[in-house]
Amino acid sequence: MQQLQTVLTVIDQNIKQSCATLFDFVRFASVGTDPAYVGDCKNAADWLLAYLQGLGLHTSLHPTTGQPAVIGRTQRQGATAKPHILFYGHYDVQPAEPFNLWHSPPFEPRLGKGAHGQDVMFGRGTSDDKGQLLTFLEACKAWIKCHGELPFDLTVLLEGDEEGDTSHLDRFLAENSDAFSADVVFICDTEMWNRETPAITTSLRGCIADEITIHGPRIDLHSGYYGGPAVNPIKVLSAILAKMHDKNGRITIPGFYNGIKPVTEAQKRQWKSLKLKPSDYLGAVGLKHLAGEKGFSLLEQLWARPTAEVNGIYGGYRGAGAKTVLPATATAKLTFRLVQGQKPKSIRAAFRKFVKANLPTNCKVTFNEQGGDNTGIKVSENSTWVSAASRALEAEWNRKAMLIGSGASIPVVQSFKEHLGLDCLLVGFARDDDCIHSPNEKYDVESYHKGTRSWACLINEIAQGDLE
Amino acid sequence: MQQLQTVLTVIDQNIKQSCATLFDFVRFASVGTDPAYVGDCKNAADWLLAYLQGLGLHTSLHPTTGQPAVIGRTQRQGATAKPHILFYGHYDVQPAEPFNLWHSPPFEPRLGKGAHGQDVMFGRGTSDDKGQLLTFLEACKAWIKCHGELPFDLTVLLEGDEEGDTSHLDRFLAENSDAFSADVVFICDTEMWNRETPAITTSLRGCIADEITIHGPRIDLHSGYYGGPAVNPIKVLSAILAKMHDKNGRITIPGFYNGIKPVTEAQKRQWKSLKLKPSDYLGAVGLKHLAGEKGFSLLEQLWARPTAEVNGIYGGYRGAGAKTVLPATATAKLTFRLVQGQKPKSIRAAFRKFVKANLPTNCKVTFNEQGGDNTGIKVSENSTWVSAASRALEAEWNRKAMLIGSGASIPVVQSFKEHLGLDCLLVGFARDDDCIHSPNEKYDVESYHKGTRSWACLINEIAQGDLE
Repeated sequence: MQQLQTVLTVIDQNIKQSCATLFDFVRFASVGTDPAYVGDCKNAADWLLAYLQGLGLHTSLHPTTGQPAVIGRTQRQGATAKPHILFYGHYDVQPAEPFNLWHSPPFEPRLGKGAHGQDVMFGRGTSDDKGQLLTFLEACKAWIKCHGELPFDLTVLLEGDEEGDTSHLDRFLAENSDAFSADVVFICDTEMWNRETPAITTSLRGCIADEITIHGPRIDLHSGYYGGPAVNPIKVLSAILAKMHDKNGRITIPGFYNGIKPVTEAQKRQWKSLKLKPSDYLGAVGLKHLAGEKGFSLLEQLWARPTAEVNGIYGGYRGAGAKTVLPATATAKLTFRLVQGQKPKSIRAAFRKFVKANLPTNCKVTFNEQGGDNTGIKVSENSTWVSAASRALEAEWNRKAMLIGSGASIPVVQSFKEHLGLDCLLVGFARDDDCIHSPNEKYDVESYHKGTRSWACLINEIAQGDLE
Repeated sequence: MQQLQTVLTVIDQNIKQSCATLFDFVRFASVGTDPAYVGDCKNAADWLLAYLQGLGLHTSLHPTTGQPAVIGRTQRQGATAKPHILFYGHYDVQPAEPFNLWHSPPFEPRLGKGAHGQDVMFGRGTSDDKGQLLTFLEACKAWIKCHGELPFDLTVLLEGDEEGDTSHLDRFLAENSDAFSADVVFICDTEMWNRETPAITTSLRGCIADEITIHGPRIDLHSGYYGGPAVNPIKVLSAILAKMHDKNGRITIPGFYNGIKPVTEAQKRQWKSLKLKPSDYLGAVGLKHLAGEKGFSLLEQLWARPTAEVNGIYGGYRGAGAKTVLPATATAKLTFRLVQGQKPKSIRAAFRKFVKANLPTNCKVTFNEQGGDNTGIKVSENSTWVSAASRALEAEWNRKAMLIGSGASIPVVQSFKEHLGLDCLLVGFARDDDCIHSPNEKYDVESYHKGTRSWACLINEIAQGDLE
């Protein structure tokens, strides 16, 4: 316990310097998706290289088809069998637009106060993911300072395309799988359950995207001369979209639910114990009632049930006033959130078959596949890593860590599983008011400080042995 | 018969001069909706004033809330009881854009050849409605030249807002109804049945337009963090639009069909005799099969049945690629074509009630009323005017004139009925390949020549007496 306490003391004494380090990192406008910022991305990567060298890691910068990947590796000392941890983070940030909504420039980080009166750091990337990834690295730094070396072999992989085209890193991992052997991946890019309660994310929904266009008449038609006899692609599209769900909110695409295992009673009980009310969760966005599948709780709908969502639709006249036109085409963009057991390729095929089966004889349909396919991910909650993380988080926060799901997708988790055969441990300290992806992004100093301490606790758990 | 023959001879001898007159008229770029052309509209109106003065009419230019109205009146000679005819036409034309698709400048009319090798006049407005309205006026001119005066009292009303905001003339007629007493209105703004067969249009569909927006969450949501529990306005809108028709294409809005009288067996027989095949009518626009209400023929669907059409739809992300958003709103633009017996106000109310009845608790709806309301119009086919026009058309074309409907709306027909209590006689000589509203608009010299002769035949019918 003494071994940990000295590290925590160093972390506490060093918190101001840690914040200054994060500020230095945030000053790089490393917007990965925008070619205008390619130089800033390179500078952020170089800064990380120097930072990792400061930890005594062997470092290198690897080109990918996107932004360069920053790699750091511990230098194996002696022959002791240690667990090997791959730590993943991303140095790219979301575009800061619209700039005019920021209260201070996004890439000039500053200290300020949050809605609860707490100390916060404002700036694009303070939370997602620069602040979060530094919690782990700062903990390593403190540990190394106190004890000379980490109780595990470490590979650090920091990429610059997480907010943009995730296929770059996926390709890089596929082509370099030999270089990343490890026992587990640590990722710090998720949220706490609430302000007081830490969380480990053990499931993620997958996602596939598709776009469909219904083609009717050869040209736009006059709704007087053709209305009635001529098919209207908007009506055809609406009918197909409407038919995709039954009156209970269940998706009607044949085979859609194949392979999904029901949520266990134990899992249901645990989620129920979280006591999240629909009116609280939805109230923040102006809604009140659950709109999903009848018979499933809010958290089941969000974490354990797939969706078929229409993200965009357009067809015909969209300007001011009226125009009496029957359009030649109508288009919808869809995404399907998937859960473990569903196969992306099968879902896409089933959806397309469903559309074709419901197409009137007068119409044609074209599909435009979007993005990569991601499966739903479920991490075993009984793994030694989850147990160790639970103990570490409880030690720091004095609350039992919640095992939560996420309705969203983190594609890299699938890449690690697919190309390296590795499970991920998802622990993060972001709060739901961090405004990630929005103006005035912030990270609480408490998230940063206690987050770093939490990782130190986990490193200590590893030092106790028996983890791999 | 001699009385008619001399007029027809004058028309035949004068056809080249008539074409030159139309060319002069077409050279005015009288695009009524575009403020850039306000001077051209005024010049076209002045040209018409001079033309009508040439017929010996009392003329005046009346301001409206839109373009000026051109009025011409015969000067009553003696006390003989004559029928009084109000002739209506419009001197404004559709915008000529896109200019680059015209083979010659739209306002530099020229003679050329049509797809059948026939002589045609190219230019914006040659058909709609400058050429068409001149067929009547040129017939009057020839009659007056031969016989000194017309066998009826004539008021000519030519407006400049038909292609734009039709409320201008409607308001003008409402406020000046006393100035337009007559027995009947003649309008030359419709089509022949086919190249060889003249037609009288005896029914028009009405039209109302509405726009609905479904409001769900306060802001656009992340489809991972909210997909499932949160309502999606696009899905709500699609479901409402889909529910508006049953599987037989019948509109399900309660009360929608109230007041509609069934088509008589005689009418059905007559339409059947026209032998219009769906594959012919729809084949031209890339379709094949009837999409409207089951159990109704093509012409019934087009001329005697109302529709609920979606003219435009939009919501959520419409750019390239995918975006995992649940949008805050989704919007659709609709028009309803109405038939005689349906009340526009009631239909609008029934539609809105239907939408509200199908709205989930989480959503709100707003409506944005568009344009003016028009009722469906049916002209008695047994009127003396229809009989006289039938005789006149058959005399000129050697084919029985077809009594046809139109699926489209001519709002002014309702204005005449509502404000003046007058029925309209709709006779026109346009052909379906005239490209009205499109680039390379044309009017066949035959349409123009035989159209003028047809009106002369009708004037002759009136001269025979017993019409009023």
